[in-house]
Amino acid sequence: MPTNAITWLEQNRDAHFAELFELLRIPSISTDPERATDVRACAEWVARRLAGAGVPQVELIETSRHPVVYGTWHAAPGKPTLLVYGHYDVQPVDPLDLWLSDPFEPTVRDGKIFARGVSDMKTNLLTIIQGVQAAAVAAGGAPPVNLTFFFEGEEEIGSPSAEETLAGHFDQFRADLALSGDGGQTSPAQPRLTVAYKGITGLQIDLTTGSTDLHSGGYGAVVPNAAQAIAQLAASFHDADGCVLVEGFYDDVIDLTSQDREEIRAAAQSDESLLAEAGVFATWGEPGYTAAERRGARPTLDINGIWSGFLGAGSKTVTPCEAHLKVTARLVANQDNTKIAELIRQHAVKHAPPGTRVSFGESEHGSSPYMATRGFTGETVATRVLSEIYGKAPQIVRAGGSVPILSHFRTILGIDTVTIGFGLPGSQAHAPNEWYLETQFDLARTVYARFFDAF
Amino acid sequence: MPTNAITWLEQNRDAHFAELFELLRIPSISTDPERATDVRACAEWVARRLAGAGVPQVELIETSRHPVVYGTWHAAPGKPTLLVYGHYDVQPVDPLDLWLSDPFEPTVRDGKIFARGVSDMKTNLLTIIQGVQAAAVAAGGAPPVNLTFFFEGEEEIGSPSAEETLAGHFDQFRADLALSGDGGQTSPAQPRLTVAYKGITGLQIDLTTGSTDLHSGGYGAVVPNAAQAIAQLAASFHDADGCVLVEGFYDDVIDLTSQDREEIRAAAQSDESLLAEAGVFATWGEPGYTAAERRGARPTLDINGIWSGFLGAGSKTVTPCEAHLKVTARLVANQDNTKIAELIRQHAVKHAPPGTRVSFGESEHGSSPYMATRGFTGETVATRVLSEIYGKAPQIVRAGGSVPILSHFRTILGIDTVTIGFGLPGSQAHAPNEWYLETQFDLARTVYARFFDAF
Repeated sequence: MPTNAITWLEQNRDAHFAELFELLRIPSISTDPERATDVRACAEWVARRLAGAGVPQVELIETSRHPVVYGTWHAAPGKPTLLVYGHYDVQPVDPLDLWLSDPFEPTVRDGKIFARGVSDMKTNLLTIIQGVQAAAVAAGGAPPVNLTFFFEGEEEIGSPSAEETLAGHFDQFRADLALSGDGGQTSPAQPRLTVAYKGITGLQIDLTTGSTDLHSGGYGAVVPNAAQAIAQLAASFHDADGCVLVEGFYDDVIDLTSQDREEIRAAAQSDESLLAEAGVFATWGEPGYTAAERRGARPTLDINGIWSGFLGAGSKTVTPCEAHLKVTARLVANQDNTKIAELIRQHAVKHAPPGTRVSFGESEHGSSPYMATRGFTGETVATRVLSEIYGKAPQIVRAGGSVPILSHFRTILGIDTVTIGFGLPGSQAHAPNEWYLETQFDLARTVYARFFDAF
Repeated sequence: MPTNAITWLEQNRDAHFAELFELLRIPSISTDPERATDVRACAEWVARRLAGAGVPQVELIETSRHPVVYGTWHAAPGKPTLLVYGHYDVQPVDPLDLWLSDPFEPTVRDGKIFARGVSDMKTNLLTIIQGVQAAAVAAGGAPPVNLTFFFEGEEEIGSPSAEETLAGHFDQFRADLALSGDGGQTSPAQPRLTVAYKGITGLQIDLTTGSTDLHSGGYGAVVPNAAQAIAQLAASFHDADGCVLVEGFYDDVIDLTSQDREEIRAAAQSDESLLAEAGVFATWGEPGYTAAERRGARPTLDINGIWSGFLGAGSKTVTPCEAHLKVTARLVANQDNTKIAELIRQHAVKHAPPGTRVSFGESEHGSSPYMATRGFTGETVATRVLSEIYGKAPQIVRAGGSVPILSHFRTILGIDTVTIGFGLPGSQAHAPNEWYLETQFDLARTVYARFFDAF
């Protein structure tokens, strides 16, 4: 990147940092209806800042909840169009009394900025805009890549409007590839590229044995017990080793190649580190795969909740007549979330113990798995830029979590996404005292600027 | 019974019925601390009534909660001493809005008296006293059997003071046999003698996998899931047919003889009747035994509650770190509740899935099974009296429920108990609109009077 851009970033360091505090002060909690005005104010702030960076066309696209900040800066004929994704909304702040400082009054302690949304993902969002501006400075006018911006205000509530917005404005969002700033790094010295996110599907299984709870003295020996039945059903989903027993569950999973496994191994956390981080007594999971392979590249079926009968203090000699089970499955590339949900329903019907009836409630979760087309332009450019800046190649990681927007970009726009972000492990993204390392702020501006400059 | 006693009962019918209403109006809810004064007022009412029947020695024995009404009428030298048991406390009345009339203002509708405690067991208690008085009239002075009364005010809270009171006043309560009025009949035309009650033991199993709930995206594939683990553990207690798999669980159970089975069959409810009464889709239980055999003569292990993870509406992708299971076992003659509790703990430790830790909380339930010595005086006399009055022999029944006081009488006083009561199936004993058939009131006075007279 030319010296003038680096100098420009250095000269504007304090101003850019002050801007970050302005943005962090806006309580853009998307799930809270009482914060709708603040969420909109945040969208307007981001739109102004985007225009201030030189983006010629900026507007808000309305949705049924919170607006999308849309912008285009198409001044690089013959170059690809990059869809830049981020979200300006944040998680709620409860429990407020656990915060050491006001979540919406950013405070620096020990080199960390503390504020709600600082890690997820207002700092990444703002430094992307600052990076765009730096890249324009470097190029002496406009960035050397065509940019389209999609900054949503509903990521923390599951991006309910994203699909409709993308499909309804297909021509405006048409692009060659996407950059998402909604991610993190392994450590300040170790860059990371996440190439896969899992899909997800879920449902609630409701089981009944009859019309009323009964006294266990009179009936425990003679009628089915819903608590026992739900336990049997819940236990039927895995074998003793941890393999999922739902028929057909693994059918569409693509086997890992030795190259895949080597790549995953290279970025893998040690079991000791995993145990300490998770606070558990032991690791667990499908045999034949390492923890990193299971986390990123093998589907899972997770019991998220189970309940039946008497849950209070003391005891109550009840034979319960109803029971409930919440299940989600995390899916990998080539699996279909709708198909897997149906297989789970079929399993539940088949394995419900005699004398019980099951019915199903839908979960709000449902999205396809996402796996980047390996070696696409975004990966290539990001790998080159990150390798130059860090002096080492990024780790290639498959995430256990789900980022539904990436599968929407794939299915609606037909494009791949490269994710570059600067939050760090343990940054309390959805918890009290969310933080972001101040030095990562400087790094982020540079990396994004050089990424845009590299096209 | 001599005519003079029958005439006396007839002449006093209205007065006795009015007394019942007086007793029913006292809200002696033992579990409610705000009703402690009412509970004591009820004890005093019963003591006065007992003295009014001619019982020469009546007093209240204090406990840490509610007093025992104690009395003796020992005027039959050479005759056995009968310990007469009942309780004057009642269940709470919630939900009050489901009552069609005030629970403490007895109301007769369609031949039924509606009031809290009318079936469980104030009517039986009062008619016992009226029966004692009638037997004294018949004998021209005092009943032809020595009577000791133990009317407690804590039955509905598990008789917490009974053991200490009996042991602490051993000489006062020493008797040859006991009569309990805390029972019911199969139908107005069909008397019943319950010769066995199950013992009970229970515990709560708490399972953990680590120190914190985790995000299922990050950790579901790599760490144990407490909800899944508790389901596996809960499911490990029974085989697919319903046999209990706790090692040693059945070791001390005495096999049923063909005579036992015939006796149980003779009093058995049909499966159709059971299904309708319980409101279930199917019967269930240990193979090789009828429902009546399982209910009365085979031990069971019951899951009374299970919970882990997210129990709210919608979904939360959590990998839970803790889970809970409430278990009780109902035990039959010759089984030991302390031993079975230990076997259940051992089973839980052995079958807790890898990567989990279990600990135990005690249940407030724990009592020995009770099985009458068949053919003891109480059974013989009751069978003779009931057969004469009803024109048919009483059904011999083994109950699925537990009546801890009977095992206390056995272990502390060394005596057997015959239970005679007049509540009917469906009498809503612990529910709104508790009722007692008015014609049973007349029957009860006669049966008790003749029982005392028969010694």
